Amino acid sequence: MIAEIVSVGTELLMGQIVDTNAQYLGESLPRFGIANYFRQTVGDNLERLTASLKLALSRNDIVFTIGGLGPTTDDLTREAIAAALDDELVLDEALLSHLRTRFELNRLKWTERQMRQAYRPRSAEAIENPNGTAPGLVCRKFGKVVIALPGPPNELKPMFEGPIAKLLTELGSDRRIESRILKVCGLGESLVEERLGDLVRGTNPTIGIYAHPGEVSLRISASAASLGEAIRMLDALDTEIGARLGNHLYGRGEETLESCVLQLLRSAGQSLAVAESCTGGLLGGRITSVPGASDVFLGGVISYSNSLKAALLGVKPDTLKQHGAVSEECAKEMAIGVRRVCRSDWGLAVTGIAGPDGGSAEKPVGTVIFGCSGPRGERVEVAQFRGIRKFVRDRSTAFALTLLREELLLAKS
Amino acid sequence: MIAEIVSVGTELLMGQIVDTNAQYLGESLPRFGIANYFRQTVGDNLERLTASLKLALSRNDIVFTIGGLGPTTDDLTREAIAAALDDELVLDEALLSHLRTRFELNRLKWTERQMRQAYRPRSAEAIENPNGTAPGLVCRKFGKVVIALPGPPNELKPMFEGPIAKLLTELGSDRRIESRILKVCGLGESLVEERLGDLVRGTNPTIGIYAHPGEVSLRISASAASLGEAIRMLDALDTEIGARLGNHLYGRGEETLESCVLQLLRSAGQSLAVAESCTGGLLGGRITSVPGASDVFLGGVISYSNSLKAALLGVKPDTLKQHGAVSEECAKEMAIGVRRVCRSDWGLAVTGIAGPDGGSAEKPVGTVIFGCSGPRGERVEVAQFRGIRKFVRDRSTAFALTLLREELLLAKS
Repeated sequence: MIAEIVSVGTELLMGQIVDTNAQYLGESLPRFGIANYFRQTVGDNLERLTASLKLALSRNDIVFTIGGLGPTTDDLTREAIAAALDDELVLDEALLSHLRTRFELNRLKWTERQMRQAYRPRSAEAIENPNGTAPGLVCRKFGKVVIALPGPPNELKPMFEGPIAKLLTELGSDRRIESRILKVCGLGESLVEERLGDLVRGTNPTIGIYAHPGEVSLRISASAASLGEAIRMLDALDTEIGARLGNHLYGRGEETLESCVLQLLRSAGQSLAVAESCTGGLLGGRITSVPGASDVFLGGVISYSNSLKAALLGVKPDTLKQHGAVSEECAKEMAIGVRRVCRSDWGLAVTGIAGPDGGSAEKPVGTVIFGCSGPRGERVEVAQFRGIRKFVRDRSTAFALTLLREELLLAKS
Repeated sequence: MIAEIVSVGTELLMGQIVDTNAQYLGESLPRFGIANYFRQTVGDNLERLTASLKLALSRNDIVFTIGGLGPTTDDLTREAIAAALDDELVLDEALLSHLRTRFELNRLKWTERQMRQAYRPRSAEAIENPNGTAPGLVCRKFGKVVIALPGPPNELKPMFEGPIAKLLTELGSDRRIESRILKVCGLGESLVEERLGDLVRGTNPTIGIYAHPGEVSLRISASAASLGEAIRMLDALDTEIGARLGNHLYGRGEETLESCVLQLLRSAGQSLAVAESCTGGLLGGRITSVPGASDVFLGGVISYSNSLKAALLGVKPDTLKQHGAVSEECAKEMAIGVRRVCRSDWGLAVTGIAGPDGGSAEKPVGTVIFGCSGPRGERVEVAQFRGIRKFVRDRSTAFALTLLREELLLAKS
């Protein structure tokens, strides 16, 4: 079964709000074995909305509309669905009395404009909205199903998870589509694709490759006659990808680089402290985004100025003078220093030139140096990133975590 | 002039990411007098992407594509644009040599698959991408313009604001819509609306009110026959809003709370250090997102554990024992301590319970305490935020900066 989402609202086109509803529906449909090839967004205009619905009906079994069901004159979804299905709008007396009762119970003032919400296309069934006044609609005509959902996310989600989920399950499909996200670090997008080789050209299961700062994620999806079979296909592909990417495959689903590093520290019973220069606190901020990080993360020092590198971390004035703050020597002393002053098992240090200024021929903008001090001794890595300040800093936090993860895995083995 | 945005990527349809790029473009187009009636989202499939582009070309002057320009085989935008414009793909030797040089300069490994990014439709001009390898494209054919932008927001935005903004201005329109963003801190969304009163109901210029964690922004827009007239209308409204919001109006456009605080420190010739507990480095990370922050920002201490609060900041063990780490006494000692150890003019401290666990009846999740130590002495503030961990932490950084800004303004007057 194929469905298309039509999001309605000029405020979406104008970028006044981000369309999280469409994301939510897109994420939810595969559960019901429903595929989704196109999405449309259209403003509050009857003619254009009707055209969008006709297009969607021409190429799908199910069409979802989001929004435009309210009482104001720019809420046109009811009219457009009727027009696209060559149906007429009728006043639903049961709906009208239901609405009036709700307004009375909630001591809201009834105005004539609320009447609009009691109209529906003749072929439609109204779906109760416990969290708002606008009812949803399910219209069946010409072998197609149009499902109209209200725009506010706190109304849309319960309606979708309740009556609509039930309907979609009944509409049933003999195919189940199941997806899984795999997380990869320490390998760029093209190297990942190279290692996966022929796997990326498969049509079932499929692999999507997405780049993030310092990381890559893979979406693997399988379509099968049953959920169990889809999961078995995903498991087999997951295993094969693991064999090709080795330790670079670090997690799945909601796992993050920081949550994995914290878990490794936790199982080793070891603690961490960070010393940050060019990242200015981002690394600590990212690590502490994980609830419960305080088990193993002690804190650290933001040694943005050279004076603090010396005063708080014990970096030798001679090192700063001879090699500069962005040097392998300094990164190493920062890592050793923060480990000592925080009495942690691991010290992780970042120093670099995030830009846009401060670069030189020898050390251009984007030069970032990492130090790691731990039970196995010290390790220093030099990286050269390209891009704006934010990107260099985001890459740097991912690189630091990847480096620490490698050292933790080596220490474990 | 009418434009349509076509967002490309199966990950968008599947809801793995929210389409903030389309929002950003939708928000930006009115500046150039460009209207926008439809938006499409389509997966990584050549046939469907080509169909979407043909539809968009049939009803618009300009078509924007977002994404699908990378080096992997599921990046199909180049091919689809060529197909929709009945054009052929050609290898651009200049682009190829440019790409190779960039890879060499950045010591990145060149693989054959990178070649894909050197192809372009014959009618296209390549647009340089300083923040990534995939160039943008501008194709002019049959009186239409297709503009292909890369998907990563940190590549898309600078390309749009630079060469594409210039192109769109040249394409011209006789009506000018000008907008300006005003930034507000220390007042919630409804209080801002209350103070603005009748102003928010204006139709030209208009005011849009948007809430962010700990801040509010206003978008004021004016439509006029000339740029000069639109700017005069905005200036008048800006002045009136300033009169109603007073010191809460802290900046405009690209200015941020952190850039304004740094500017105040700079003009006072004073330095800052931070002590962070529940924010774990986010506050330092946010301050150092501003280029040149090192003028006045020295760094600080991430005292996530109680032991570091005592060892690095000199918080008294007695204070921790009697009042706990989340207490007014502790916040004050953290601010004084970080100011002392970093030898800064100002010390700014945050300690709190970000959740989801760790709350109590007396100090529920979301309790965050701020300490500020400066030339005028110490000040402590207690806040109670509601929401998930990320929201509490983001609100906390905004609150800390707002507090410091107030103290800096008081010290100045």
